[in-house]
Amino acid sequence: MYKIITLENGLENVEGFYCGATHVGMRPDMTQGDVAFIRSEVPCDISAVFTSNTFQAAPIKHFQTYPQGFQTDFVLINAKNANAMTGEPGLEDIETIMSTLSTKQKVLNPVMSSTGVIGYRLPIDKITSAFEKLDFKAKNSHEASRAIMTTDSFKKELALRVELDDGSIFNIAAICKGAGMINPAMATMLCFIITDADIPKADMDTLLTDSTEQSFNRISVDGDTSTNDTVMLLANKKSATYHKKAFTQALEKIMFELAMMILKDGEGANKLVAFEVKGAKSLDEAKTASMALSNSLLVKTALFGEDPNWGRIASTIGASGISCDDKKLSIYYDDLLIYSDEFRELDKIREDKAYTIMKQHTFKVTCDIGLGDASYISYGCDLSYEYVKINAEYRT
Amino acid sequence: MYKIITLENGLENVEGFYCGATHVGMRPDMTQGDVAFIRSEVPCDISAVFTSNTFQAAPIKHFQTYPQGFQTDFVLINAKNANAMTGEPGLEDIETIMSTLSTKQKVLNPVMSSTGVIGYRLPIDKITSAFEKLDFKAKNSHEASRAIMTTDSFKKELALRVELDDGSIFNIAAICKGAGMINPAMATMLCFIITDADIPKADMDTLLTDSTEQSFNRISVDGDTSTNDTVMLLANKKSATYHKKAFTQALEKIMFELAMMILKDGEGANKLVAFEVKGAKSLDEAKTASMALSNSLLVKTALFGEDPNWGRIASTIGASGISCDDKKLSIYYDDLLIYSDEFRELDKIREDKAYTIMKQHTFKVTCDIGLGDASYISYGCDLSYEYVKINAEYRT
Repeated sequence: MYKIITLENGLENVEGFYCGATHVGMRPDMTQGDVAFIRSEVPCDISAVFTSNTFQAAPIKHFQTYPQGFQTDFVLINAKNANAMTGEPGLEDIETIMSTLSTKQKVLNPVMSSTGVIGYRLPIDKITSAFEKLDFKAKNSHEASRAIMTTDSFKKELALRVELDDGSIFNIAAICKGAGMINPAMATMLCFIITDADIPKADMDTLLTDSTEQSFNRISVDGDTSTNDTVMLLANKKSATYHKKAFTQALEKIMFELAMMILKDGEGANKLVAFEVKGAKSLDEAKTASMALSNSLLVKTALFGEDPNWGRIASTIGASGISCDDKKLSIYYDDLLIYSDEFRELDKIREDKAYTIMKQHTFKVTCDIGLGDASYISYGCDLSYEYVKINAEYRT
Repeated sequence: MYKIITLENGLENVEGFYCGATHVGMRPDMTQGDVAFIRSEVPCDISAVFTSNTFQAAPIKHFQTYPQGFQTDFVLINAKNANAMTGEPGLEDIETIMSTLSTKQKVLNPVMSSTGVIGYRLPIDKITSAFEKLDFKAKNSHEASRAIMTTDSFKKELALRVELDDGSIFNIAAICKGAGMINPAMATMLCFIITDADIPKADMDTLLTDSTEQSFNRISVDGDTSTNDTVMLLANKKSATYHKKAFTQALEKIMFELAMMILKDGEGANKLVAFEVKGAKSLDEAKTASMALSNSLLVKTALFGEDPNWGRIASTIGASGISCDDKKLSIYYDDLLIYSDEFRELDKIREDKAYTIMKQHTFKVTCDIGLGDASYISYGCDLSYEYVKINAEYRT
């Protein structure tokens, strides 16, 4: 048996890691950093999952220039500029930055991660000026998590300690950013997870991929997929302890909770809704219908309007192209049956109950297709005026 | 040779057809009808294209109960209630309405079409009360086109006269509705096209399908697909004249112009933008990328914000999953090259020109993938606060 305990102060809890941030003038607000780092005393194994966008940003291409199974002890992150669609010069800029870094601090295979506007070269002088200011011995998770924010309205960090029966412990912690442009294929989100667990590299790869599918790949703010999405897991093995089941549970918990934080911070979003599709003929069909619901503009605006009419839910299921039959379909808001073949028209009593459910910040929509055993759950949010405002004004 | 002339007064121009509308209390505004009809003196051949949504509304199912190649002389249309997801009773309601109609007016295989809220039974008494008020000898296209509106802000009607070299003429005219919930798979739009051309039934079927693909299937307001979309073509052959090439051109012109009217009336939309993808490896890929652009929330909000940054265009192409390479890609706003491998960063001169282009109500975005010969063009609009307001408040 084991215990999983939530800790304050994010990345600072993990043995042998340092982190911090500074302001180099990339964002106007001088009280918030724009360049952050995560550093380990010893070389780390690293696993990463990247965007499915064909136009992967320069830092992602740079990562892939290292040989498979490479170790690193340094991650540099900047906000306000994605270094995406910048071609060969974008890659060269990273080399230049890293070579300047290596004159200030001994680093092994440093990796970079960027978020912000697409199509502009990085301001190299500004970014390298960070190396004069940064304290590479700092442990400042709050600063690091604030520095990587773009349209995020709050910082996202989480730390867990796993206590095993024999008294040994290991830690796992993460910082994360993402608010708009979030969709199943990992859109404009960055997540950096560090651990001192003595985890084998093979487990890192498998567990990171699996947990991404259970968390970030199930949330949708707007159905768009960015060029920069990245989830990284770094393990420095300092604790000399590992327990696969406990680690899996802790990793899943961290990633799921961070995914929910991103969704709650969905640009202008007020509601977090789980869309469960069950009774589908296949997992593919359940997933298709569930993601169609969390991506539909008409469903999102109905959530914002707190309109309990199930017509848009049904219409979206029908439009998704999966096998379905209106005589077999049932729709629930939380536990309230809102549609079935016998209850097609919404009566006053159920409508009033539905209004109450929809006024909540968090609730669940369940669609039972009634044709099979497959189910899938995804998570969406509403679409408000604020989303339009943010995205009409913000440059990505 | 032949001439195609645009006429006023929509449906009224077509020989042997009658049309009109009345108010039966389904919508609050008594000055606008909510039940409309189109009637022909003689039996018509009819072709129709329906929604791809699995949950087809009752009137579409009712249409399909007639034998293939059936003739009709009557179309009844109501607004405010879609008669969708109403099961068997929804079909029975149409039978009841049509049987009452046949006691007032001799009709052959009457068909129905509905638009409005999903999941409520039709108010049969209200709808049949229309038969007491309607003048079945009326020719009132304006009234009919206004009666079928939902969130539309203007009525949509168009008529063309084809004059052949030998002095013979035929006419083709249409009314149409649609503003929100519009997407490639024919979403909440109804279009009724009538002609007195002596067109063979086989041509009707082919040309209607082809022209739908060239028009309504290329526009997108929000990427959702309704349960009720319908395009119908009725031919009473009264003119005893036909010319395939001229008819094709007239039909394409009518359907394309109506599609552009729908897009201009996109809920809260201010801009109409053509998204051409060329140089793609295959037509499928060109279409996928083009539709991805016209459906992307981030592209739509950038249009609304008049932000010339091409990053969201490129990111959407990359996210669409088609074959592409940022070194081969070029992006143009109208004729202005805004991105290519040599011009990645937006300079002040091109940025200023781009601002001017984006301030227009109508412009074109061209993405040359640079990998092949296939091209596709689709049409989209911006996403404004108004879209959210309309769809948060309106029940579908």
